[in-house]
Amino acid sequence: MILDKIHKVNDIKKLNSDELEQLKTEIRNFLIDSISVTGGHLASNLGVVELTMALHLSFNLPTDKIVWDVGHQSYTHKILTGRRDGFIKLRQYGGMSGFPKSEESDCDAFDTGHSSTSISAGLGLATAREIKGESNYVISVIGDGALTGGMAYEALNNASSLKSNFIIVLNDNNMSISENVGGVNKYLNGFRTASAYIEFKDGVMNSLNKIPVYGKKMVDRIKRTKSGIKQLLIPGMFFEEMGIMYLGPVDGSDINSMCKIFQEAKRVNGPVIVHVITKKGKGYPPAERHPSKFHGAPPFDIETGLPLTKKTQANYTDVFSKTITNLAKDDERIVAVTAAMEDGTGLSRFKANYRNRFFDVGIAEGHAVTFSAGLAKNGLKPVFAVYSSFLQRGYDQIVHDVCLQNLPVVFAIDRAGLVGSDGETHQGIFDISFLSSIPNMTIIAPKNKWELAEMIKYAFEYDSPIAIRYPRGTAYDGLSEFKEKIRTARAEVIYNESQIILFALGSMVKIAQIVHDKLKENNINSTLVNARFAKPFDRDFIKCASKKHSLLVTLEENVASGGFGEHVSSFVKDQNINIEVLNIAIPDMYVEHGNVDVLYKSLRIDPESVYNSVLKKWKNIQN
Amino acid sequence: MILDKIHKVNDIKKLNSDELEQLKTEIRNFLIDSISVTGGHLASNLGVVELTMALHLSFNLPTDKIVWDVGHQSYTHKILTGRRDGFIKLRQYGGMSGFPKSEESDCDAFDTGHSSTSISAGLGLATAREIKGESNYVISVIGDGALTGGMAYEALNNASSLKSNFIIVLNDNNMSISENVGGVNKYLNGFRTASAYIEFKDGVMNSLNKIPVYGKKMVDRIKRTKSGIKQLLIPGMFFEEMGIMYLGPVDGSDINSMCKIFQEAKRVNGPVIVHVITKKGKGYPPAERHPSKFHGAPPFDIETGLPLTKKTQANYTDVFSKTITNLAKDDERIVAVTAAMEDGTGLSRFKANYRNRFFDVGIAEGHAVTFSAGLAKNGLKPVFAVYSSFLQRGYDQIVHDVCLQNLPVVFAIDRAGLVGSDGETHQGIFDISFLSSIPNMTIIAPKNKWELAEMIKYAFEYDSPIAIRYPRGTAYDGLSEFKEKIRTARAEVIYNESQIILFALGSMVKIAQIVHDKLKENNINSTLVNARFAKPFDRDFIKCASKKHSLLVTLEENVASGGFGEHVSSFVKDQNINIEVLNIAIPDMYVEHGNVDVLYKSLRIDPESVYNSVLKKWKNIQN
Repeated sequence: MILDKIHKVNDIKKLNSDELEQLKTEIRNFLIDSISVTGGHLASNLGVVELTMALHLSFNLPTDKIVWDVGHQSYTHKILTGRRDGFIKLRQYGGMSGFPKSEESDCDAFDTGHSSTSISAGLGLATAREIKGESNYVISVIGDGALTGGMAYEALNNASSLKSNFIIVLNDNNMSISENVGGVNKYLNGFRTASAYIEFKDGVMNSLNKIPVYGKKMVDRIKRTKSGIKQLLIPGMFFEEMGIMYLGPVDGSDINSMCKIFQEAKRVNGPVIVHVITKKGKGYPPAERHPSKFHGAPPFDIETGLPLTKKTQANYTDVFSKTITNLAKDDERIVAVTAAMEDGTGLSRFKANYRNRFFDVGIAEGHAVTFSAGLAKNGLKPVFAVYSSFLQRGYDQIVHDVCLQNLPVVFAIDRAGLVGSDGETHQGIFDISFLSSIPNMTIIAPKNKWELAEMIKYAFEYDSPIAIRYPRGTAYDGLSEFKEKIRTARAEVIYNESQIILFALGSMVKIAQIVHDKLKENNINSTLVNARFAKPFDRDFIKCASKKHSLLVTLEENVASGGFGEHVSSFVKDQNINIEVLNIAIPDMYVEHGNVDVLYKSLRIDPESVYNSVLKKWKNIQN
Repeated sequence: MILDKIHKVNDIKKLNSDELEQLKTEIRNFLIDSISVTGGHLASNLGVVELTMALHLSFNLPTDKIVWDVGHQSYTHKILTGRRDGFIKLRQYGGMSGFPKSEESDCDAFDTGHSSTSISAGLGLATAREIKGESNYVISVIGDGALTGGMAYEALNNASSLKSNFIIVLNDNNMSISENVGGVNKYLNGFRTASAYIEFKDGVMNSLNKIPVYGKKMVDRIKRTKSGIKQLLIPGMFFEEMGIMYLGPVDGSDINSMCKIFQEAKRVNGPVIVHVITKKGKGYPPAERHPSKFHGAPPFDIETGLPLTKKTQANYTDVFSKTITNLAKDDERIVAVTAAMEDGTGLSRFKANYRNRFFDVGIAEGHAVTFSAGLAKNGLKPVFAVYSSFLQRGYDQIVHDVCLQNLPVVFAIDRAGLVGSDGETHQGIFDISFLSSIPNMTIIAPKNKWELAEMIKYAFEYDSPIAIRYPRGTAYDGLSEFKEKIRTARAEVIYNESQIILFALGSMVKIAQIVHDKLKENNINSTLVNARFAKPFDRDFIKCASKKHSLLVTLEENVASGGFGEHVSSFVKDQNINIEVLNIAIPDMYVEHGNVDVLYKSLRIDPESVYNSVLKKWKNIQN
């Protein structure tokens, strides 16, 4: 097996062309085999096998630096840098990350995870190289989907001022996670079939040259018009007008052609875009047919392409999906916005029913927020469905465009809390902190399935900015007998007892319920409360309940700093309320990838650990 | 005077062409007279007098909706909508805002302040109109500088899917606040002289038509090639390729031409860009010569253009400016990044000395942060100098690109705290909240001039992400005898007494000092502490000092929620430290425009109010 000859970076350079040919197939098979067992990003990785090989053949890692945008296409790169063994524990706790990590390898030049950062980071690396007088190459590999993110454009705009080489590989598969949307895609489509252009250009020039007098004059004229016609006749004109040379398009399955074009690109003194046409899912028919399903795939059967374990229980995304679609039937003002996450956020169903009230704005969270603000300002009821960690991109827009005007935008924050195998860049553990300092913002979280549906209804009646946060994965179906009507800033008391208050938010109600039962076994009473509102939380309840309890435990799936618990603690302190407080939250750190249950334990927010913490604090108080 | 005929919106439509001609001059004179007294944005407003008149003549406000990007060019619009009287108290507490405010007038369709939001907001308004089946026009007016912001591009990308009319006026003055940078500017420059293009295009077509056989074929071929040559021959091709029609450029001083082109624009079924060439500062020679100085101008002498009150004392920006330039002399790794705020952040001096280590990336804070991360990753010591409220745009990038990799980027956060007359959108009152929940981030703030310089030196030695926040305006020069060396997570005790701890951060040390003296007059001792570190704050000091004090007062110029005080309170509560806590901070609300001293009083963070709050709490404790 050729793969066995790859132990470390640059081993690929020792292979002959037949071996390279075989390696392509082996890598593809390895990826399919491996991901079918562990799960992971399949389609994006299958698409760039040859591109990655060409990059490794053309450049000299780790001296040269490749920045992978998003990073979910870096598996072949990991294989070629000696990390094949890591795939056994891919995305598992303590195992290899599914994204580039400089801690894993010095061939990972910059950590990524969110979209559209690679040109900015690469430009920084290249600029530093220039200042330090070094001469290595810097290559940013960015997908066409990521080009819909404004940051990529900000970086392109800025890149034009660089005087030394900087190679931007446009990995164009005409897909983001869902299908690409918007104008950029139209623009790129224009020259995906570049041969037509080139043929046309040659045709024009030849035709003109054949004409004795006028023709020659025209050709001269065209050649003289530096900034005009000349560039207009070739694809990539926009990039070139911005001062960025454009090379391509080149076939992303043809290693030789890519190597040739990279040699050309190396000679450019300044930024250069190399346009590579790839195919998501290439080589595995089920992924070619449904690249979106194989973007982030669970373990699957290679023969059929079907997931190995069938989803039996509804997750929160499904609940959101159904509820929003139902509500939209009776209220024509309800409209839905997504930033390239139609499937992930569950809006596909809404789209199928209300095509003209559904908006996929591309990977563009900042715009999505302000666009939603505009929709609300003009009388509609927009919901922006978004993953917690991606909403970070819209922070200023929430402050400046939504909350300042107190506009009724509903934020449906999916993947709030630990997301598991995607790891550090994707954990949704900051949203309570960054949202709760914004005036006019309300933050709520459901204890279970029923409550998410209720909260969505509540949110559309709320008439102010409101965020509903709910976690990834199976929707909790327990405590289903507790259905108190949702009222603003009011918690729901589940078991009204004494001694300890377990004041739990959202996903932590389930944990608190177990802790409550364990305490009971130990003859300690506790009042179990579903906080519902992280902001404004139920101050009256705390004041009142403090009379018959001596410990208030807050529980949340968010970092401690600036989170729900801190707000409660400082309220208790400020009001001199006579009750001890214990905050259960995620420690102030980035949380690595791994199974969510394992992460809960490692962060000490699993039922057992919480029980122990509560017990310890309780004993302290008793003494 | 024609201006006296303008009492309300649409009054302008009653004027004849001579009167309109006179109105232009009167508005310009009014703006110059008025702003020379109150201060305000001059250059941007002088540039769009005719454009605004043309818009008001062409559209029907408030039914039609104009969104002003940034909004600092909306003065003529305010005059034409009957708010001329408001200019007496422009940007003063209780007076008229310098930005569009829907609370002020129903002709202000969307509140703005930060750059590059108008296309997103306008697209939202237009989309809602479409869904509601209404037929008014929506116009977003955006400057060429604001086009360097990624959000504008995200919105353009998304706009192409709109099926109904949406007019984007590109107000092109070839300037942002400082000079424009980057590729977009190069691109626009290409067709600022569009006549050359049009002439050339006509020339080509005519030449070809004259050629009997080949020529006709060519013309036909060009006409047939829909997505190719046809659009390539006209300016605005990028926009058209994105699916957005392009009209222009048109002379922004010619009202008739603009009115004509707006009529054309109204007929487009979809988004259309109208490219208007304006001149910043037009009609006032000092502003034409130095548009950047007259961007936001203090009161000035009309004759000379010079500020009325000479700046006698250094402000914090000057201190930063000098310090960073000095440090860069001895450390070649220090590089400086700004997002189109070279003057405002004080980096002009650095640029003058170290041109190749200075980077103006355009109005692109997100990119600026990740670009800085790239610079740091490759061994340099970048400082990103930025206003607090604009750093909000880089929140995700700080989380995801800087702090995750623990990269030593220095954030020099100017205008942290109340900024005064720019008001709600510009107050820098959230940075402690949004930064302190980010792992690996350190936040410090200087008590005075000396300390800012020391902190900058400290920051460059720190080797982790660090933010220094300092306010707008005169640098405090008091307490100059207190020069304890800066040590990580250590506060500086200024007066070590008993009873009360005044634990003050940054700008609040000066206030706390006055409070300390007033308490003393009242025979109450207090320990005055310069907190220095907002994160990590000096926990040891608090633990230790709690033994001989019974009240801990935190003071900060940031909102209470998620701020310094809350973190301290919850620490005290968590650790069961036996001391009462009082948090002095900005209430959780947006703070309007006005003189900073007036705002301090209204928010009860001025010395007198703080003294009263402390005294009240102290008396409570005594009882």
